[in-house]
Amino acid sequence: MTALTKVLVLNGPNLGRLGSREPDVYGSTSYAGLVEACRKTGAELGFDVEVRETNDEGEIIRWIHEAADARTPVVINPGAFTHYSYGLKDAIAQRTAPLIEVHISNPYTREAFRHTSVVASVATGTIAGFGIGSYRLALRALADELAD
Amino acid sequence: MTALTKVLVLNGPNLGRLGSREPDVYGSTSYAGLVEACRKTGAELGFDVEVRETNDEGEIIRWIHEAADARTPVVINPGAFTHYSYGLKDAIAQRTAPLIEVHISNPYTREAFRHTSVVASVATGTIAGFGIGSYRLALRALADELAD
Amino acid sequence: MTALTKVLVLNGPNLGRLGSREPDVYGSTSYAGLVEACRKTGAELGFDVEVRETNDEGEIIRWIHEAADARTPVVINPGAFTHYSYGLKDAIAQRTAPLIEVHISNPYTREAFRHTSVVASVATGTIAGFGIGSYRLALRALADELAD
Amino acid sequence: MTALTKVLVLNGPNLGRLGSREPDVYGSTSYAGLVEACRKTGAELGFDVEVRETNDEGEIIRWIHEAADARTPVVINPGAFTHYSYGLKDAIAQRTAPLIEVHISNPYTREAFRHTSVVASVATGTIAGFGIGSYRLALRALADELAD
Amino acid sequence: MTALTKVLVLNGPNLGRLGSREPDVYGSTSYAGLVEACRKTGAELGFDVEVRETNDEGEIIRWIHEAADARTPVVINPGAFTHYSYGLKDAIAQRTAPLIEVHISNPYTREAFRHTSVVASVATGTIAGFGIGSYRLALRALADELAD
Amino acid sequence: MTALTKVLVLNGPNLGRLGSREPDVYGSTSYAGLVEACRKTGAELGFDVEVRETNDEGEIIRWIHEAADARTPVVINPGAFTHYSYGLKDAIAQRTAPLIEVHISNPYTREAFRHTSVVASVATGTIAGFGIGSYRLALRALADELAD
Amino acid sequence: MTALTKVLVLNGPNLGRLGSREPDVYGSTSYAGLVEACRKTGAELGFDVEVRETNDEGEIIRWIHEAADARTPVVINPGAFTHYSYGLKDAIAQRTAPLIEVHISNPYTREAFRHTSVVASVATGTIAGFGIGSYRLALRALADELAD
Amino acid sequence: MTALTKVLVLNGPNLGRLGSREPDVYGSTSYAGLVEACRKTGAELGFDVEVRETNDEGEIIRWIHEAADARTPVVINPGAFTHYSYGLKDAIAQRTAPLIEVHISNPYTREAFRHTSVVASVATGTIAGFGIGSYRLALRALADELAD
Amino acid sequence: MTALTKVLVLNGPNLGRLGSREPDVYGSTSYAGLVEACRKTGAELGFDVEVRETNDEGEIIRWIHEAADARTPVVINPGAFTHYSYGLKDAIAQRTAPLIEVHISNPYTREAFRHTSVVASVATGTIAGFGIGSYRLALRALADELAD
Amino acid sequence: MTALTKVLVLNGPNLGRLGSREPDVYGSTSYAGLVEACRKTGAELGFDVEVRETNDEGEIIRWIHEAADARTPVVINPGAFTHYSYGLKDAIAQRTAPLIEVHISNPYTREAFRHTSVVASVATGTIAGFGIGSYRLALRALADELAD
Amino acid sequence: MTALTKVLVLNGPNLGRLGSREPDVYGSTSYAGLVEACRKTGAELGFDVEVRETNDEGEIIRWIHEAADARTPVVINPGAFTHYSYGLKDAIAQRTAPLIEVHISNPYTREAFRHTSVVASVATGTIAGFGIGSYRLALRALADELAD
Amino acid sequence: MTALTKVLVLNGPNLGRLGSREPDVYGSTSYAGLVEACRKTGAELGFDVEVRETNDEGEIIRWIHEAADARTPVVINPGAFTHYSYGLKDAIAQRTAPLIEVHISNPYTREAFRHTSVVASVATGTIAGFGIGSYRLALRALADELAD
Repeated sequence: MTALTKVLVLNGPNLGRLGSREPDVYGSTSYAGLVEACRKTGAELGFDVEVRETNDEGEIIRWIHEAADARTPVVINPGAFTHYSYGLKDAIAQRTAPLIEVHISNPYTREAFRHTSVVASVATGTIAGFGIGSYRLALRALADELAD
Repeated sequence: MTALTKVLVLNGPNLGRLGSREPDVYGSTSYAGLVEACRKTGAELGFDVEVRETNDEGEIIRWIHEAADARTPVVINPGAFTHYSYGLKDAIAQRTAPLIEVHISNPYTREAFRHTSVVASVATGTIAGFGIGSYRLALRALADELAD
Repeated sequence: MTALTKVLVLNGPNLGRLGSREPDVYGSTSYAGLVEACRKTGAELGFDVEVRETNDEGEIIRWIHEAADARTPVVINPGAFTHYSYGLKDAIAQRTAPLIEVHISNPYTREAFRHTSVVASVATGTIAGFGIGSYRLALRALADELAD
Repeated sequence: MTALTKVLVLNGPNLGRLGSREPDVYGSTSYAGLVEACRKTGAELGFDVEVRETNDEGEIIRWIHEAADARTPVVINPGAFTHYSYGLKDAIAQRTAPLIEVHISNPYTREAFRHTSVVASVATGTIAGFGIGSYRLALRALADELAD
Repeated sequence: MTALTKVLVLNGPNLGRLGSREPDVYGSTSYAGLVEACRKTGAELGFDVEVRETNDEGEIIRWIHEAADARTPVVINPGAFTHYSYGLKDAIAQRTAPLIEVHISNPYTREAFRHTSVVASVATGTIAGFGIGSYRLALRALADELAD
Repeated sequence: MTALTKVLVLNGPNLGRLGSREPDVYGSTSYAGLVEACRKTGAELGFDVEVRETNDEGEIIRWIHEAADARTPVVINPGAFTHYSYGLKDAIAQRTAPLIEVHISNPYTREAFRHTSVVASVATGTIAGFGIGSYRLALRALADELAD
Repeated sequence: MTALTKVLVLNGPNLGRLGSREPDVYGSTSYAGLVEACRKTGAELGFDVEVRETNDEGEIIRWIHEAADARTPVVINPGAFTHYSYGLKDAIAQRTAPLIEVHISNPYTREAFRHTSVVASVATGTIAGFGIGSYRLALRALADELAD
Repeated sequence: MTALTKVLVLNGPNLGRLGSREPDVYGSTSYAGLVEACRKTGAELGFDVEVRETNDEGEIIRWIHEAADARTPVVINPGAFTHYSYGLKDAIAQRTAPLIEVHISNPYTREAFRHTSVVASVATGTIAGFGIGSYRLALRALADELAD
Repeated sequence: MTALTKVLVLNGPNLGRLGSREPDVYGSTSYAGLVEACRKTGAELGFDVEVRETNDEGEIIRWIHEAADARTPVVINPGAFTHYSYGLKDAIAQRTAPLIEVHISNPYTREAFRHTSVVASVATGTIAGFGIGSYRLALRALADELAD
Repeated sequence: MTALTKVLVLNGPNLGRLGSREPDVYGSTSYAGLVEACRKTGAELGFDVEVRETNDEGEIIRWIHEAADARTPVVINPGAFTHYSYGLKDAIAQRTAPLIEVHISNPYTREAFRHTSVVASVATGTIAGFGIGSYRLALRALADELAD
Repeated sequence: MTALTKVLVLNGPNLGRLGSREPDVYGSTSYAGLVEACRKTGAELGFDVEVRETNDEGEIIRWIHEAADARTPVVINPGAFTHYSYGLKDAIAQRTAPLIEVHISNPYTREAFRHTSVVASVATGTIAGFGIGSYRLALRALADELAD
Repeated sequence: MTALTKVLVLNGPNLGRLGSREPDVYGSTSYAGLVEACRKTGAELGFDVEVRETNDEGEIIRWIHEAADARTPVVINPGAFTHYSYGLKDAIAQRTAPLIEVHISNPYTREAFRHTSVVASVATGTIAGFGIGSYRLALRALADELAD
């Protein structure tokens, strides 16, 4: 029996509160639903998916380091860090396996944010605008990348 | 027997020359390979995929109109139009079915382009950076959107 | 009997779809209604109005050349070309008769467009914000200009 | 006998000196000619036109308030206020009847002004570039708006 | 018996029309209600409050001069002058007693205004976003400042 | 006997060092004095005030989440986070009770900071420039907001 | 005996308060001293100098019109209007005699003003930085201009 | 006998109207004269020169593709496309032989265009400002490049 | 025997991973090598050097506070915080002993960072571009500063 | 007999060619005429005027040093150095006597120069727009400054 | 025998070191080779070519003056002066014969320079990107210009 | 006996006047003291230090060429050239030995300079803010670089 490939799904600030937050922007799925969806899609793809969330920049940086050390593929929704965390960017630049940036809604359409993503240039690719589906697509993308 | 769902995969300027062009940026797949990959993935998802390419802004606008009239889902790689065709944007804003913007490489990492996508704000979602895989992911994303 | 003065009413990308498009921005009149309104007002003013629409930058440029050769007055709604077609601007700069730029809604109030009109500086004048009425006013303005 | 509809034609700073000022930019018509032209066109359209001019921002704001209280339609040439009077803009935003912004020449072609109109976004529409004719067209536009 | 401290509450353009103006932005209180609220809160704090409003930049500058000469504390809502009146700013810079800038809504959230306050840097402090309550808080703030 | 309303007073980076820091900018009151002043004013207004300070973005985000869950009103001085923490902004956008942004000095006069507040647009209101008094005014503002 | 040449010395907002205002920036001379100095220098040069000051944009515009009608030379210190009054600029553009812009201090060194003069391009010349002496030099410059 | 080297001379929008257009900017030579001059100089250099012009972005892109496939050297005057056609730029980036950008007048001196050339960075070199002579020099430059 | 002077060498995000990270940018020295080099140079200069690293903005701020309380000199490489942590800047502004900013490579040559250092203005001095040598030079600089 | 006060009149690049250069911008006076006018006016004011011109930045800097050492007043027309020579600015900042910046035409009206003067902030004052008269006025201004 | 036409080929800073400098950018030709090539091509065209190089802005300005006095045609590679020497630009504006700006590589593709040429607007034309060939083409262009 | 390594210490405009210039910014050390300090530290490190200063851009460029030819290490304080001399930058880019940029004060804290260093990207490293000590540290840095 082949061991499952470990995949980290990392979420930045405020994402753990999904479901309690502006439903017209983020959809009605709760964070628990997000975790469940990631695990389910992951299992279908042969992934052992671990979903984490944090409001701390230092912690998400350490998780990227952990993934870099273990060559673990990553799906990351940096949340608001997308727009200013050059620290996260520097960490991602050290990745040793595919890392996919996801966004629930399209960050380029949110008026309040004029900054584009500071991490996109060091990610494998970006998927945005499909709600929880962005994560499911990212896991499939990972499966494709790893199959190559 | 259920009829297959028609899906249009539209490509903007220069994309028809895929394979003859800067392989370090766009990978080695040829345009024929792109067409084949889209059809194959489409078939797996129950889609009747038609792939088109054009160098003419007016033509890609008319194809979007055609899709809007027939409520056909669209996967579109606007190529260089991404950066300046407000005419394409206005057309996409009239879409009546999901439309997904794809890019082979990540446009946000291409130094020569400082402009972000002018069409992203009217698309269902955006997938960028996975080479030909961006199109396959987009077709899956369409399948998920249509299943909702 | 005096021959009617020929007038060209030219419409840029997506305007041919008037009526099927965002009614809260553009009003409920269809493109057929626009054509009818232009012809009717033109007839009252002694004009033989021909209304055309195109999604092709090259075609609208050629129509401007045609008008320049025949000294035909023009009413033009450049649509999205307003914001980036320096090719259209160069063509208009060669006009040999009055040419009036019209917009159905006020382009300066549309948030998505931060660019002002690149063609206004070479037009006789600009009329914006009166829906289909912008065209009727432009035809009257032409009549006044030609009467001077 | 039906009472005539009252219409206010308001002019901002320096417009009262029309005729003594840079004739190559503003044409040779005097301010008296402007007043006469507005009254004449107004009479043809069933309007009782009152033309005023002021160099005072506070006064033009009060005139807008007066029009808002009486639901009087307005044609306004804000002159230099076009470019910086947010006070005038706030007043216009309270209008209770159509208000049309006019300019004798096209403000978007005057090199010295890089700012666009700060009031256009709260006006019904804008007419620019037809000399005194801009006012006549605006009165017709008002007649059309009121007829709707 | 101690004489009451005189306090001037000064309002810039359009504020005298409070109640007739965009109620979703400014609340439903009328200008009369504002005057009453200021007087009542002032009386509780031992202030003889005089509330004035003007649409004229020159007049509000003269009122600031009057306050500077008499060492009268001021609460000022500059309205649209907030964004461009360097003349008002220069006047406030000469103040000889506390002067508090108030705004009914938060000017930093009003899309139409991209400029920040040009007068804030010379005011004692700023209070914004509490509707009529901004004035009441400002009067209390004055009382605290004067007690120090 | 009515239970006191709980109010959180939250302070961002470096504010816990008040008193040891640039006294000409921040005044001579110590952080202990700030805590005392908030508690005293709170008690007068029927509030059970808890004052906290942190240098960690993640922690202040979690405190905002805690307040959102318990519908606790908040007074917050984001300190330097004012200028770049979009993570804090996203958290505040989820508030379920009044939240007032305060600053000891006026951030718009501090030369070193050219950025305006990124959180002001999601706060109830802003009070700045009154030293420790900014907090006292904010608590009164909360009392007024809750009384409405 | 030759009649003296009339010269207008016009001062914008807050300049009438010279002497009561920031002496380290503007020097210790009072407005009365300024008037006296202008008259005295004027008399030496054969000028009948009339010094005026106003806080009203409309009034200073009317004075410029008056000077244009009478071909009166002007020395003008626009004060804060320097930085935003396009209305004043349009008025000055109609001048029929030399008009010299003066500033007591150098506006290009005042940190708070990042805008350069909007009126300089239509003035005969500019003299700045010599305190009251700027006016005296301007009167001499007028004498030289008129002698040419 | 050696076969002549084929060279394409491509012209963008409005250039086909040379001679009927603003003679003070473009000189008095007609388009026919341009074609003749290119053929004559080409013949002297051993080139079989084919001169084409189009107003269509898509067509000029296809011509660049055609040249890339046949390794044909190109002289191109992109006209207004110089300033915004990233589609043309992407096509030129695929060139397989020398391609020289020419301009009749110097685009860096035309006030109306603030954008520099978007295609210069992918061309072999640029020649601008010599009228029809720019084309002749470009053909010589091609001859030199091919001789190296 | 004189006690050694305590010196803190503080490192921001990702610096603890030195050696595993982009060797062409940062050189091949590991973090352990950095620690060793600092201790060795420090010992030569009579310093008791303690080297710390963190990915947490709050923690590095607290370390600066600790140094400020104990008047400990500091050498700091803020890593990515250099570009956005105004919180770190505010902390450094409270320093009570020399604090030297170091960078392994020159941040002004790193294309991805367009922002200059936000902390440089409050540091004693800056040393950049010497690899690990930047730290050694900074310790010498501290020795010189303390000797003065 | 009192010794005359030495005054240096310094001219930057191209000014020595006055008279041979664009007469519509600079007037028809030759450089020799400028020298003569300065000497004549100087003599009237009791100055021993020495006029120099150079095209070398280093030389004009040395002349400023020479003046600083001898406490010599200076009139300087920096020519094109006005717009970029921070080296000249640093030199002027060391002046020990009045130094007046002059311009023949008004630099703020010359379209080609968008930069304002980089030296104005360290000069005593600025006089611009009076042709050769700018120098004469500057000498008088010096006389007034020295008399104070 | 006709005298040869004198032509000056002027080179700005660092160009005299051609051959010792970044060969991948500037090609392998040495400065001596450049001089030789210019003389040889010049001789073929009937020119007496004198090639000079300098690192001094003042010197290159004087050479332009010399050429203006003698009506000598000029080929100039301003080197780095291209980007900031307004002094050189003012000198070139006085030219009395054709002057052609050349660049060895295309300055618009050199990342380190974001500024466009400040001298192009006063040159006859520009030739860039052909290595040493740029000079040869410029000499031919001169011959064509002089023949006209 | 080993020959000492030659090191050039080069100083740009105004630095030769150190000691006579703004002592609060630059400290009280004179230029002679700077020379002495460089020689003394150099001697300790086995360097034969030659200190030069110039106000001429051309001369400092030639010195850099001289150093490049002799492979001489350089310490350079470009003074005001830091902010605009692309000529100096191009020269430094040709260096054949370590070259260290020094500044007496931190250029990033000098308000008057908004430009960052244009030469930093081609220097080995940068040391700023330590007064004369910046030079001493740079010489040590050179010693370390040469020892590697």
